Amino acid sequence: MTGTEHAQPRGGLSRRGMLGLLGAGAGGLVVGGGAGAAIGASVGSANASSSSGTVHPFYGEHQAGITTPVQEHLHFAAYDLAEGTTRDDLVSLLKDWSYAASRMTQGLQVSASGAVDGSPQAPPDDTGEALGLPASALTITFGFGPGLFDERFGLAARKPAELAQLPRFVGDQLDPMGSYGDLCIQACADDPQVAVHAIRNLSRIAFGRAQIRWSQLGFGRTSKTTVDQSTPRNLFGFKDGTANILADDADALKKDVWVADSDAPGWLSGGSYLVARKIRMTIEVWDRLRLAEQERTIGRNKGEGAPLSGGGEFTEPDFHKAGAGADPAIDSHSHVRLAHPDFHRGVRILRRGYNFVDGNDDLGQLSAGLFFLSYQRRPDQFIGIQRALATDLMSEYLVHVGSAIFAVPPGPKQGSYVGSGLFT
Amino acid sequence: MTGTEHAQPRGGLSRRGMLGLLGAGAGGLVVGGGAGAAIGASVGSANASSSSGTVHPFYGEHQAGITTPVQEHLHFAAYDLAEGTTRDDLVSLLKDWSYAASRMTQGLQVSASGAVDGSPQAPPDDTGEALGLPASALTITFGFGPGLFDERFGLAARKPAELAQLPRFVGDQLDPMGSYGDLCIQACADDPQVAVHAIRNLSRIAFGRAQIRWSQLGFGRTSKTTVDQSTPRNLFGFKDGTANILADDADALKKDVWVADSDAPGWLSGGSYLVARKIRMTIEVWDRLRLAEQERTIGRNKGEGAPLSGGGEFTEPDFHKAGAGADPAIDSHSHVRLAHPDFHRGVRILRRGYNFVDGNDDLGQLSAGLFFLSYQRRPDQFIGIQRALATDLMSEYLVHVGSAIFAVPPGPKQGSYVGSGLFT
Repeated sequence: MTGTEHAQPRGGLSRRGMLGLLGAGAGGLVVGGGAGAAIGASVGSANASSSSGTVHPFYGEHQAGITTPVQEHLHFAAYDLAEGTTRDDLVSLLKDWSYAASRMTQGLQVSASGAVDGSPQAPPDDTGEALGLPASALTITFGFGPGLFDERFGLAARKPAELAQLPRFVGDQLDPMGSYGDLCIQACADDPQVAVHAIRNLSRIAFGRAQIRWSQLGFGRTSKTTVDQSTPRNLFGFKDGTANILADDADALKKDVWVADSDAPGWLSGGSYLVARKIRMTIEVWDRLRLAEQERTIGRNKGEGAPLSGGGEFTEPDFHKAGAGADPAIDSHSHVRLAHPDFHRGVRILRRGYNFVDGNDDLGQLSAGLFFLSYQRRPDQFIGIQRALATDLMSEYLVHVGSAIFAVPPGPKQGSYVGSGLFT
Repeated sequence: MTGTEHAQPRGGLSRRGMLGLLGAGAGGLVVGGGAGAAIGASVGSANASSSSGTVHPFYGEHQAGITTPVQEHLHFAAYDLAEGTTRDDLVSLLKDWSYAASRMTQGLQVSASGAVDGSPQAPPDDTGEALGLPASALTITFGFGPGLFDERFGLAARKPAELAQLPRFVGDQLDPMGSYGDLCIQACADDPQVAVHAIRNLSRIAFGRAQIRWSQLGFGRTSKTTVDQSTPRNLFGFKDGTANILADDADALKKDVWVADSDAPGWLSGGSYLVARKIRMTIEVWDRLRLAEQERTIGRNKGEGAPLSGGGEFTEPDFHKAGAGADPAIDSHSHVRLAHPDFHRGVRILRRGYNFVDGNDDLGQLSAGLFFLSYQRRPDQFIGIQRALATDLMSEYLVHVGSAIFAVPPGPKQGSYVGSGLFT
């Protein structure tokens, strides 16, 4: 890791967090003295093959990783809080996570002490696989699931009324152990090793307080959030996210992404709601469809991504334009039609999904699809759109196997921690 | 996809290959005429975020993907030949695969006809998700497993005597459905979407002839094959592959990587043997080891990767140098000591592995480790080294869950196909 320690956070890991790292819970290894050696001094050379030195600040009005230009790689993890974890433990965990995230997003090791070249008598705080790699545009975004607001932590009164598990949709075949979670972390970076390093080290810090319930790697972002990003393609081979909310569209962000002061509860103001859906695609079936049928299903052509009503990729679809025969040029059950804001009273969401390939299944078919992530001001934005997609032609080639929702608090202020508003 | 069609292969997919793509086997869709539209004409713009336009030639003395500078991403697949597949089918498959590979490695769609902007009445030959992406240094490397030489294809007399499933090693807990295979394809690229696209389209072409038995994605190469590549880190956080055979070390390649004319059988001359091992790491246990114990296990320090006998990363280890007390500075059971060529009569292998993370297991532990790939002139080079690693301190933190071996034929000549020497 490289990078100067600008905005270096004060403090460090909690004693509980240190115990997690030091393995005391697992066998009582003795901690030596003087673990505060220089960080990265002998390991600071940049990796020539990973040139992304971009650093996104961890602190700010909103959490990074929402409107941040979508990075190439994702590691997402959902956590359950361990039996016996107290409210104080939860606060301590969020402080530790914030401290570690503020460092890793700068390309630094996970803590300022006990580094890889620290005391030989202690496990290094940092696991080391990102040493020498630049920050790689890493963002770490934290979310709170509905379970956080049950009776365990005295937070029931602070629960957002709209934060509830999603209803069952057509096409849902959910794996419970690939769904839900008390907490989540979305780590995005231009280098997968940097994203994996972040999730691994944050999971390690959580030892004894929270444990991974499920996790997902993704690549080849399926959305664009800045105007200069080219529109990527999903595993159906089509451009995806052409009409996404862009990061510089302040009006759209205000209207449809950020929770406002006037929304309840106040601690979530400046935050958002995150929906995660693991959507398996029946790739082999899709690949056997005629091109015309693929295009009818999507409502756009495959080559350029232009709506079937004509024009180029960024031409607005004309749902009234006649096609051959009596049918409209854009099928009324096409994906672009059913998902279009015109049919959702102008409501939009900010998509931030990734492709995934988990190898193959027992039948030799690719176990692959879309790991859908969207940010919205209210969960009902997603729910309304997803309900409308029940008759989507595309749904024939999709199975939803994972689902989760999280309230994403606003960005932490320098010196504070993520979600602090929930505890004051 | 972009790229001029230099060295454009003649011919195209076999009728059998076309049937696989057209879905005739699955429902008899009618093929329209005139499927030979221009390729990529409207979809040729480069993706700004994927700048690797590097093209490696598919044809040549040796297959690409062995001494080629290691790319950042891997998709590896092993295939079983389908019941009823004949020798002619096998030849036809290898021709189809070679044709498609020669195109995709140039950044072109998988065939010259039936493209994404081809006939609307046929499924596109190309699945489309790599449209607009550059060649991304893609290499596609084919291998033949021992099963190819059984009674099915009349190849028993051509079987290399040394091509046999690997013996059972200490630490093996092999998943049969994550091991072995009649054929394999190693796709490496600097963009994971390009590697995935290659395996997906080659699997599709094989429909009815061969099917995926197992597959694996990898990232963050764990080896270097050129002197200017920095040494990457594995998921133990240590630099890995410091002493690898480099692509420009002609003597070492000749001695330890390429099958020679004087070796039998002749059709494999200029080829190599590929060993694939999926090695799960017990990450959470490793992370709790004291730094000193981690370093003792590896035999190098974690920060710089220098041998514990002193010096820098590229200093030769001194196994005789005394450490503190009576023990040598480099433990006699350290990984670097047991794997060192000095203790294998100078025998080396060319490593080309990747890190993998398959999410997490049922216990919430990272399902992660090393997907080990090595190329060598004779399988006994790997076998000898692996046997010596039985007492490796590191083996306590490793479980080998997948294993396979393949004979990798030499590179195909322009206008021919991979493995052609086996059928003449």
